[in-house]
Amino acid sequence: MTGVIERRLAELGLVLPAPAVPVANYVPYTVADGVVFVSGQLPVVDGALAYRGHVGRDYSVEEGYAAAKAAALNAVAHLKTAAGGDLDRVEAILRVVGLVASPPEFGDHPKVVNGASDLFAALFGEAGRHARSAFGVASLPLGAPVEIEITAKIRR
Amino acid sequence: MTGVIERRLAELGLVLPAPAVPVANYVPYTVADGVVFVSGQLPVVDGALAYRGHVGRDYSVEEGYAAAKAAALNAVAHLKTAAGGDLDRVEAILRVVGLVASPPEFGDHPKVVNGASDLFAALFGEAGRHARSAFGVASLPLGAPVEIEITAKIRR
Amino acid sequence: MTGVIERRLAELGLVLPAPAVPVANYVPYTVADGVVFVSGQLPVVDGALAYRGHVGRDYSVEEGYAAAKAAALNAVAHLKTAAGGDLDRVEAILRVVGLVASPPEFGDHPKVVNGASDLFAALFGEAGRHARSAFGVASLPLGAPVEIEITAKIRR
Repeated sequence: MTGVIERRLAELGLVLPAPAVPVANYVPYTVADGVVFVSGQLPVVDGALAYRGHVGRDYSVEEGYAAAKAAALNAVAHLKTAAGGDLDRVEAILRVVGLVASPPEFGDHPKVVNGASDLFAALFGEAGRHARSAFGVASLPLGAPVEIEITAKIRR
Repeated sequence: MTGVIERRLAELGLVLPAPAVPVANYVPYTVADGVVFVSGQLPVVDGALAYRGHVGRDYSVEEGYAAAKAAALNAVAHLKTAAGGDLDRVEAILRVVGLVASPPEFGDHPKVVNGASDLFAALFGEAGRHARSAFGVASLPLGAPVEIEITAKIRR
Repeated sequence: MTGVIERRLAELGLVLPAPAVPVANYVPYTVADGVVFVSGQLPVVDGALAYRGHVGRDYSVEEGYAAAKAAALNAVAHLKTAAGGDLDRVEAILRVVGLVASPPEFGDHPKVVNGASDLFAALFGEAGRHARSAFGVASLPLGAPVEIEITAKIRR
């Protein structure tokens, strides 16, 4: 039997990527008392970084939005593993940090990080409503334009 | 009967702003097991962003301090809602992240973020003593010079 | 009797620094329900900031790695205090945030922050395997090239 969230993924035309292997000496997520800390995710698609550059210089806000969505989908893939394969056990997306590589004059981080927020809302409904911090950074690992980090609660 | 923290706010000559509506698709705070994650707050005063620019370029450290205090006051407003309207239920400010939009050569982030830390200490006393990370970012949403994010514990 | 982790520190030829005093109005760590939030740590050695500048401009990736290790060692010193002096009570390093002051074109943050991650893995073994976010910032307090912030779980 397919879960509610898995069906919603299919309805949205989304396929979860294979959980990406961390690019260095750490793990994709840790869990303590039902709280899952997922490592910062890059817009990796089909195993390769799909965007390289800065939003507001190399990418438009719309492209940044798509990159944030792709990064968020990788976070969902790890969350699924953390939840023992059952996304219906996700009780709440507690916190989202959205990092946007961008020039000093950029100010549209909220619109870019919405690529992640809209995905969590569409997928998880009420449970997807999260606290959020978005900001612009000088640079990101491998030259990525966005990085999405989430903290979530899982039903035990 | 007015609470202890509300009286302290009045003594400090401070008025809590109306809790600011998030600028995008997320919520002001989430709660799990008494831990409150408040979304990153900007120096919004009377419903409008009161500062726009970079500290160390457009603003002095003192102006940055005032902006950090204004952002922190918005965080307290959300914390009050999270605590069911009773700030006396705030058991601890656990973690403060202070982001300062600033040029590469800037190094006075601690003095700027003290605008938030001093407020938490003055308001909450021992309960306001928090762990903190401060750093300089390329840019912030809407061109704000500072963003303050807090995690707190609420008595249940 | 010396603890397991203390012996490992000695085997690695490492000496814990005296816990650094925060550079502003906050505390080195807070604890809630066994979760320790350690303030962001700079590469302070023998009481003084040992590196000043940007990785990828003033420092090589290897030097950045050494700076991240030094910062992480300060985090371990605070974690020891939080654990009542007994590092064997560290149950898990849950989350590591690695900030690297670096130019817009820098992309090797993962290699730099490994200076912290490798230390946690070497010291704590399985318990040292953490979720991680690494990114490049415009500037850091006092001109430091790296800042390391950790969240950990302590056995009660």
